[in-house]
This record gives sequence, C-alpha cells and structure tokens, in this order.
Amino acid sequence: LITVLAGGVGAARFLQGLLAVHRPSDITIISNVGDDAEFFGLHVSPDIDIVLYHLAGLSDEERGFGIKGDTFTVIDAIARYGYDTWFRLGDRDLATCITRSDLMRRGRTLSEATAEIASALLVPARIIPVTDDRLRTKIRTDEGLLDFQEYFVHRRTEGHLREVVFDGADKAVPAPSVIESITEASAVIITPSNPLVSLGPVLSVRGVRDALKSTPARVVAVSPLVGGRALKGPADRMLRDQGMEANAVSIARLYEDFLDVLVIDQVDKDLKPQIEALGVEVVVTDTIMSSMEKKCALARTVIKAAGA
Amino acid sequence: LITVLAGGVGAARFLQGLLAVHRPSDITIISNVGDDAEFFGLHVSPDIDIVLYHLAGLSDEERGFGIKGDTFTVIDAIARYGYDTWFRLGDRDLATCITRSDLMRRGRTLSEATAEIASALLVPARIIPVTDDRLRTKIRTDEGLLDFQEYFVHRRTEGHLREVVFDGADKAVPAPSVIESITEASAVIITPSNPLVSLGPVLSVRGVRDALKSTPARVVAVSPLVGGRALKGPADRMLRDQGMEANAVSIARLYEDFLDVLVIDQVDKDLKPQIEALGVEVVVTDTIMSSMEKKCALARTVIKAAGA
Repeated sequence: LITVLAGGVGAARFLQGLLAVHRPSDITIISNVGDDAEFFGLHVSPDIDIVLYHLAGLSDEERGFGIKGDTFTVIDAIARYGYDTWFRLGDRDLATCITRSDLMRRGRTLSEATAEIASALLVPARIIPVTDDRLRTKIRTDEGLLDFQEYFVHRRTEGHLREVVFDGADKAVPAPSVIESITEASAVIITPSNPLVSLGPVLSVRGVRDALKSTPARVVAVSPLVGGRALKGPADRMLRDQGMEANAVSIARLYEDFLDVLVIDQVDKDLKPQIEALGVEVVVTDTIMSSMEKKCALARTVIKAAGA
Repeated sequence: LITVLAGGVGAARFLQGLLAVHRPSDITIISNVGDDAEFFGLHVSPDIDIVLYHLAGLSDEERGFGIKGDTFTVIDAIARYGYDTWFRLGDRDLATCITRSDLMRRGRTLSEATAEIASALLVPARIIPVTDDRLRTKIRTDEGLLDFQEYFVHRRTEGHLREVVFDGADKAVPAPSVIESITEASAVIITPSNPLVSLGPVLSVRGVRDALKSTPARVVAVSPLVGGRALKGPADRMLRDQGMEANAVSIARLYEDFLDVLVIDQVDKDLKPQIEALGVEVVVTDTIMSSMEKKCALARTVIKAAGA
C-alpha cells in the first residue's frame, strides 16, 4: 500500500509513472484542496481534477490543466452575464464541476463526490481530498490577501509573496481514512509539487504532519526544484520571497521533521551533503519527467528508495 | 401599457411581432414557470428562456428551443457521470442556467434573476415569472404522475392525459407587480399557447384569474388551434384527452370568465357564433406566424382588438 501526498501538475505527471509501475488499486492519493474555488456557483477542485484527468488519459498536457481538445463555449457565453471569466474552465472540465457541485448539494462530501467522479473516469487508484472541510490557500502580497486562484491565475503570481495563509486549517479535520492511509502505508511519497502552496495546505490539516512523523513507513519526497528552478510554476520565486534558497536543500528543510529520503536531480548532486546534514537520506537520479519512460523510471527509483 | 400572459414557443413567436410594432418598454410579459425543472443541480426555466432568446435574436427557431448554433459538449460530457441527459441543454443555454442558479443561490428571487439575465441579453421588455415560489406542472397519465419535462421531453407526451396538476399552486403567491401589471394595464394579451400546460400554470397562481376578471383593460387571447390542430405541440390531443373539442371554442370556454375577445384563424371563422354565444367577441384573421410580417400583422390586429 503506497500513499501519495499530491499537488497539481507535478503530482499528476509523477502519478502517471507510479500507476504504470505499481498496482493502481494499492495506491492512495491524498490531494490538495487549498486551491479549490467557487466560480459561477460551481465547486472547482483544480488539483483533484488535474490528477484525475492525467490518470484517465484526458489531460491537456501542453496547457498544464483541463481536458485535451476541450472547448470554451460556456465560459464565453457566461461572460455575457457579467462574470469574470479569467478562470478558463473548458466545457468538459465544467461538466466535472457541475457534477461535483450537484453531488455536494445533494449531501455528498467532497471525498464522496471525488470517489464517484474518479470511478466514472475509470481511475483505478483511490483519490481522497485531504479534508472535506473548507480549506482555502490565500496569498498575502503587497496588494493584500488574495484568494489563491486570483493570485495564481488572474494575477499570474505577480507580486512579492509575503505570506501563505491556510484559511480554515484551524478547523479542518482530515477526510475519512486520510490519517490511516499514512500510518498504515508501506511507503509514503511526497510528489514533486510546490512545497508552499500545493503540499503546504495538505500538511496544514490537523494530524497529517503527526501521522507522517509517526508512520513506520519510509517517507520519500521528490524535489520539484532542479538546478535552482521549478520545472513548472513559481515555486522557486516563492521560496526566495519567503527568504529561502530555491533548491532541494530548502525542500529538505521544509519536510525535515518527517522526511526519510529526498530524491533530487543529478544536476543537484552537490547538494547531497547539505541535505544529509539535516538527517535526510538522498537519492540522486534523473527527475525530469519528459517521457513516459522517464516517469516510470522515476517512480521505480522512488519506490525503491521507500523500500516498498 | 400592455401585459402579456405567455407560455413557450407560441408566445415567443407572437412576442417577436408585438415588440416590433409596440414600444417594448411598455410591454410586461408574465411567464409560465410550471415547466421549470432542475437538471444536474441547475435551475432550468424553459419558457422564460425561449421568450428571452427569441426577443434577443438568439433562438433556434427550427428546433423550437435553445440557442441557434449551440453545441452540446457539456451535456455529452456529463453523461459520463451517470446523468440522464434526455433534456438536451446546449452549452450556451447552459450558461444561462448556470447564471440563474448562481444568482438564486446567492439570494436573488427568480424574478430578480430573470431581470438580470434579460438585461444582459438586451431584451427591452419586462419579463416576470408569474411566481417566485415553486410551482411545477405535473401530468397524470396511465403511467402515474410525471414531472412535466419527463412527460413532455423524455416521453414525448406519450400516453393519455388524465390530469394536469399544478404542484405548489396552493402556496404560490404572484411575483412582485404581476397583479398590478394586469389590473393597471391598458390591454392584456393571452398568447397563442397551450391553455392547459402553458397558460394553465399562470392562471393557477392565486389572484391572477381574479385580476384578469377585474381589470378594466380588455383581455384578448389568440387561439393556438387552427383548423382543429395545434400549430406546435400537443395542445389538440391534450384537449381531447380532457374531453374537450380541439378547437377555438374550447379555448374560449377555458377563458370565458375573464376573456373579452378571442382572435381566431380565418379557417375557423364558422366557429364565431359558438364563441360569441359564450359572451366572447371574436376577431377573425390570419393567425399563422410564418414570417415576421405575419407576426407583426397579428400583433397589430390583437392590439386593435384590445383597443389599446
């Protein structure tokens, strides 16, 4: 049983490899919900959906989100009614959001709705939002406190990142079986995702960090930074804004209280001693997932590092 | 000030003419809501929308509902999630439903949401749902009591019509200014719509029928039946199922308590004495709205008959 703590696109790409080399039904994915939002009264769960679409073979890998070949008829029509439409939900993507919203209004929890959607998309792994409660990442810049999607999509991460706030984290409880899936796993994997805004919200939920510390399973993270840069997204700049170096050492520092192994790219091999000095083992490999073969090779390396 | 009690497609086509020959801002349209429904958690108001789309120049006149050139990407995608998708909402049509549902969830009444949508579509007449309360037409056939859209769209009006039920009519109160718009009008027009399931729900709302009886304005209806047949839809068969003849005399009987004038088609001119015997004046004209010119001519005839 492998449990994966997952963010968005980096997680989705890593999971494509993992599900190809390990029995999918033995994999539990715990998903970030901090970037969830409501648009036009619909509940949007971007990180859950990007993982589902990647695992269902539907994802628009070039655009990095949404469904391949999707159209934008509804969003264009809705603009006429005065809505901001900078969050460009495609039509098929919208069908997922309509379904989720309808299920939740009829009383299903987010994790129940997610399970139904995953099942309809024939995704063979279990995917659980880290919490069914409202947890929203907010970003404080010099402009004030912004909703995550406002900062991330609308403003394209402009501005100095002063603070990441997990609104609702004080009250959010883990969704059913989140904690058990960590404490009873034979391996726990942290995907190569933004540590501040993708995995930060997951780790902010009560009990998750403690479960990671206490689990007998080895906890292995893959660094999302290669040669000082994020492969995708603004993690490098965000770390610097927060006064940290944009490299794998900072990843190890952020996770050092529970991390057993950090998998880093070969270009960063010189960082190994610094990371080991934090009490974290290091595995050096090619972490750039530019093909399905490389995704599978990385997944195999991570599984091996976890001793699973 | 002209007030129009309206159903669906027949009303929409008649109103295209009326708004062309009379100042639109002096026209109030009171719309049927008995065929409203919820699909996938979205509030659908087919009769309101068909009127809006016709008046905004967006309607798919061949199909008789929805928006011209609309696509069906969302409805096809939503089918994957296990929904019945026999109610074929187009993508642009869905944008209207998403908007309405969002506005209502944020506390707007149906009439407020309708006004916002009409304004966005630049419809220059006022359109008011007859009630903001829940009022649903249900149809009893030999199969039992069916939701209106289930009977009308899914089952294509199959089966003997035993009873038309206006669920919620006992509690529904007229939306703001519905009653005043009838009692203070200089003319009231009943569109050529199905008297049982399109205008029936409008007339079922408390106070509407009394307002029609008491208004000093002349009340003029246009018969939806020509030569014993409904031009569109199953009104003829429904009337027969209810033990009535499928002709303009039955229309006059259904409205005789408040009707001043019935406008009938020239092919039905022999029915004039029977209708007059009910105390209803008769105007004979061409009621077939096969072109914009004919729609305008019919509207002029109706306005004249109303003495407005």
